[in-house]
Amino acid sequence: MNFGAIIHRTSDNFCYPLDKDTIQISLKTGYDIEKVNIIYGDPFLGGILGGNWKWSGEKLAITEKIELDYHILWKIKLKPEYKRLKYYFELFSKDEKVYFYEDGFFYEDKFSNGQCFIKPWLNPIDVKETPSWVNNTIWYQIFPDRFYNGDRSINHSNTLEWGSKKPKNEDIYGGDLRGIIEKLDYLKDLGINGIYLTPIFKASSVHKYDTIDYYEIDEVFGNKETFKELVEKAHSKDIKIMLDGVFNHCGKEFPLWQDVLKNGPNSKYYNWFMINKWPIDTTKKGTEDKSFYSFAFTSNMPKLNTNNQEVVNYILDICEYWVKEFDIDGWRLDVANEISHYLCKEIRKRLKAIKPDIYILGEIWHDSIEWLRGDEFDSVMNYPLQSAITSFWKNTSMTNVEFMRKVNKCYETYMEQTNNVLFNLLDSHDTDRLIHRVEDENIFWQQLTILFTLVGSPCIFYGTEIALEGAYDPDCRACMPWDKIERGIYNDKIEKLKKLINIRKEIEAFRNNNIEFLNEKENTRVIKYYKKDNKQKFLITINASDKDINVECKKEIFSNLLNGNILSPKGILIERIEE
Amino acid sequence: MNFGAIIHRTSDNFCYPLDKDTIQISLKTGYDIEKVNIIYGDPFLGGILGGNWKWSGEKLAITEKIELDYHILWKIKLKPEYKRLKYYFELFSKDEKVYFYEDGFFYEDKFSNGQCFIKPWLNPIDVKETPSWVNNTIWYQIFPDRFYNGDRSINHSNTLEWGSKKPKNEDIYGGDLRGIIEKLDYLKDLGINGIYLTPIFKASSVHKYDTIDYYEIDEVFGNKETFKELVEKAHSKDIKIMLDGVFNHCGKEFPLWQDVLKNGPNSKYYNWFMINKWPIDTTKKGTEDKSFYSFAFTSNMPKLNTNNQEVVNYILDICEYWVKEFDIDGWRLDVANEISHYLCKEIRKRLKAIKPDIYILGEIWHDSIEWLRGDEFDSVMNYPLQSAITSFWKNTSMTNVEFMRKVNKCYETYMEQTNNVLFNLLDSHDTDRLIHRVEDENIFWQQLTILFTLVGSPCIFYGTEIALEGAYDPDCRACMPWDKIERGIYNDKIEKLKKLINIRKEIEAFRNNNIEFLNEKENTRVIKYYKKDNKQKFLITINASDKDINVECKKEIFSNLLNGNILSPKGILIERIEE
Repeated sequence: MNFGAIIHRTSDNFCYPLDKDTIQISLKTGYDIEKVNIIYGDPFLGGILGGNWKWSGEKLAITEKIELDYHILWKIKLKPEYKRLKYYFELFSKDEKVYFYEDGFFYEDKFSNGQCFIKPWLNPIDVKETPSWVNNTIWYQIFPDRFYNGDRSINHSNTLEWGSKKPKNEDIYGGDLRGIIEKLDYLKDLGINGIYLTPIFKASSVHKYDTIDYYEIDEVFGNKETFKELVEKAHSKDIKIMLDGVFNHCGKEFPLWQDVLKNGPNSKYYNWFMINKWPIDTTKKGTEDKSFYSFAFTSNMPKLNTNNQEVVNYILDICEYWVKEFDIDGWRLDVANEISHYLCKEIRKRLKAIKPDIYILGEIWHDSIEWLRGDEFDSVMNYPLQSAITSFWKNTSMTNVEFMRKVNKCYETYMEQTNNVLFNLLDSHDTDRLIHRVEDENIFWQQLTILFTLVGSPCIFYGTEIALEGAYDPDCRACMPWDKIERGIYNDKIEKLKKLINIRKEIEAFRNNNIEFLNEKENTRVIKYYKKDNKQKFLITINASDKDINVECKKEIFSNLLNGNILSPKGILIERIEE
Repeated sequence: MNFGAIIHRTSDNFCYPLDKDTIQISLKTGYDIEKVNIIYGDPFLGGILGGNWKWSGEKLAITEKIELDYHILWKIKLKPEYKRLKYYFELFSKDEKVYFYEDGFFYEDKFSNGQCFIKPWLNPIDVKETPSWVNNTIWYQIFPDRFYNGDRSINHSNTLEWGSKKPKNEDIYGGDLRGIIEKLDYLKDLGINGIYLTPIFKASSVHKYDTIDYYEIDEVFGNKETFKELVEKAHSKDIKIMLDGVFNHCGKEFPLWQDVLKNGPNSKYYNWFMINKWPIDTTKKGTEDKSFYSFAFTSNMPKLNTNNQEVVNYILDICEYWVKEFDIDGWRLDVANEISHYLCKEIRKRLKAIKPDIYILGEIWHDSIEWLRGDEFDSVMNYPLQSAITSFWKNTSMTNVEFMRKVNKCYETYMEQTNNVLFNLLDSHDTDRLIHRVEDENIFWQQLTILFTLVGSPCIFYGTEIALEGAYDPDCRACMPWDKIERGIYNDKIEKLKKLINIRKEIEAFRNNNIEFLNEKENTRVIKYYKKDNKQKFLITINASDKDINVECKKEIFSNLLNGNILSPKGILIERIEE
């Protein structure tokens, strides 16, 4: 038996409460394990604490199996009668039977005196809860300067003609909040019910990630009245609004930073930042000399010291203000992995107290378990899923089994409550655009089909509905070509996306985690999976091979490159199998 | 390569800050891995976020290796120049070289575009800090009724004659706080510098785990003045005082519970408990019918609802009161695994704010990682270590290698900061007594020698200095035989323990985690390990075999059953090797 590959702990994704009655338990083993039973009971059955009393547990076979690269993940949900649980496992390989307790492996059942795994009590206050509306939300990310200019009277003096050239980092095109208000019907028609705005507070740059005033809307975007109108009109159309909070750092012109530059250690804000040497040489472009810490090495974005209680309070007040005064529905936290966990916990406490179903999303690109245990964020931006999907097309020797295992990995690391609201995206202002990456519109639709049929909360970047082109920043931030849209040039694309959005919104199976992969060996470049809810079952087929494949089309829901029963290379078929 | 056995995550014991500059990284692999390098650098080297920029990292060989049952644990400390870190591993088996990134294993170095493991920023406020005094504390656990009767005027009317018989559950013998005050010199002389008192608040039973009033000392133990005197006199002798807080449940006679029993759902305390059915049948002994939740199934200890903010505030005020008014140094939290994590976090915040070096100890018998991440407890009662030590003598076919791996497991699950203050014990009021368990005084000293030379904070149960006998509760709670102690009958035992205590207190090597096992193959029942500090190096030899062994005794510090260069079965030798 491969003992080294058998992994379990009574924490994180291995053992957690799903709700006030249910514990989700997962166990990793190698592929040599053929069968697993769990034996469980109340921790006080047979005596208190350290005694060697006998107890007799219930035995259940674990039947749910998820495949990972080198592990089988065995999953089972238990509802302990008295809200507390002890358990151990019985593992079978081809020729061995072994018992797995917290204190090790045993060939004989220790039963009466082993150290069981213990989940001692199910306190409802410790159960991670995520907002239920998020799983049914289709997000649309807007980079305001490039979306739509609705109010030319507030244009910056340097505003360029809309879409007149390939965007550069410093270009200003004049998109604003009025523009978003005017396009709400367009978004509503598309099926969008959540807008994620990159920063809109007063800042120096066009991207506004260098805040000057956390309490003001940047004047080139509008003012508080316009923003209030945007939120209200969006809400009246059942569209949620999420703002982008940049609390890791501020902009160079942030008055408190300017106060420090002027007064040095005498400034009462000196400890609001992370300054190592004084005086600071402000002519330097970078911060590699560690004179102070900044975002990356850019001297125009000094890091806020989120270890300082005054700074924490300052940020909490800002977070609260925009919820209380403007009724926003979510906060996306920029560079969320660098602000202190202490601040993250306080943000959750403060915001959930005033708006229990607010969505708190962290911008984290890597394994985020430390932020997702229930006392910090609801969710993170699921870039690992983007990477898993991308890799299958980038590496044409990858098989459907390998693809499945990569996708499974994206979900097995977190709680189900988190997975329900994971912010799934294929592109953003920080990446190349999807169509640019895949270089083929049919593959573009294949990847979007996967995005829209997996559990989580999908987001499209403005312009993805028309397959807008763009390499990495600044290329990916082009102006929306409204004239062409109005002339109907993109109608077929828009209609296709609308269809994908609508089936996801209408059918629970596409939103839940009930997935079953069918990995055909005869063509390992075909991805097939079932999605199921209580009522219906669907089969999704993605032909990434270079051959036509036969499909036995039952009831088509969505397709691309389907001719009768033949699905061409780069084709898509979603069909209803059972109802 | 055994990929399934290769385990790493950027969380918990695998990757955490040791202090504001240092990250501790650990990687588990199977025994097939012969060499590991880590390649690391700043996350912003070569570009921001998702880009595919090239970067060139530092490469270091990982040389610290800890053996576990089926894994090697590779450990390294890194000090990232800019407080943020990305890294991946290069692994060598006999015939393969593999790169291990967060998104998987690769035969070729992805270098420029793999998803590295990321520890994004070292915020000092998130670094777990434990009180420095605890590692140098020798605890003495007192069960007050059985320690010493110093004030007969407050004896309960049912008080039995001291030590007149084998104790039963309900027996009262009259030990009290005055008795402890009078024995402070005795404890000081023994070398004790921390007293852990089982509960002393007003309660019904003799063990006082069924609190009636959290703001009063039980009258049979004394009053607040006596307690104040105890703390002050202890402090004047450099002895710390830790109280036992029973907040998981209260006693049946707790007035608020009585109010609920009287007024039912109309009581304003109805939601302070966990009641499922009303009315409650108070004649029932157990709570198996789930009419309400209690400690185990005992109807006389109803669980407090630590999900209720009012209850949380009530408990926080109690915790604070005894620190503020009486200057206690620690709280041991009873049944700490069943109270809400929410409460645990609030307790830490409230107490550390008023007394930053207070010690918060949870009574948890199993894997406690969820409580030890830095925002809840400093430490837990290290029963797994007791179990590891016990097992080596219980199972005489166990080898020194297996013993080492079991001990290593007790420490590899937590942060070093936690290990420094882990509450190590071989017996308590909840177990059989050590001498009863091992049935042999020489083995008794062997196990104590191990206890006193491992990292953590050792505790002896009152009476262990005289090898007091006792099976499980109530047997283990016998009266201290002061008459015999005064007659000098136990002098040799007391002197031996004093010596062990003193060398631990005087020599850092015995308190730190710098351990190196020498597992001789010729006699696998001999435990040998080096302990080292900056100045000195020691060798500890524990002969658990049935044969004499030769030792080349350099400079003996402590021994038992040593004759010249011969260490008899059950013998102990601690010797200074280098200075």
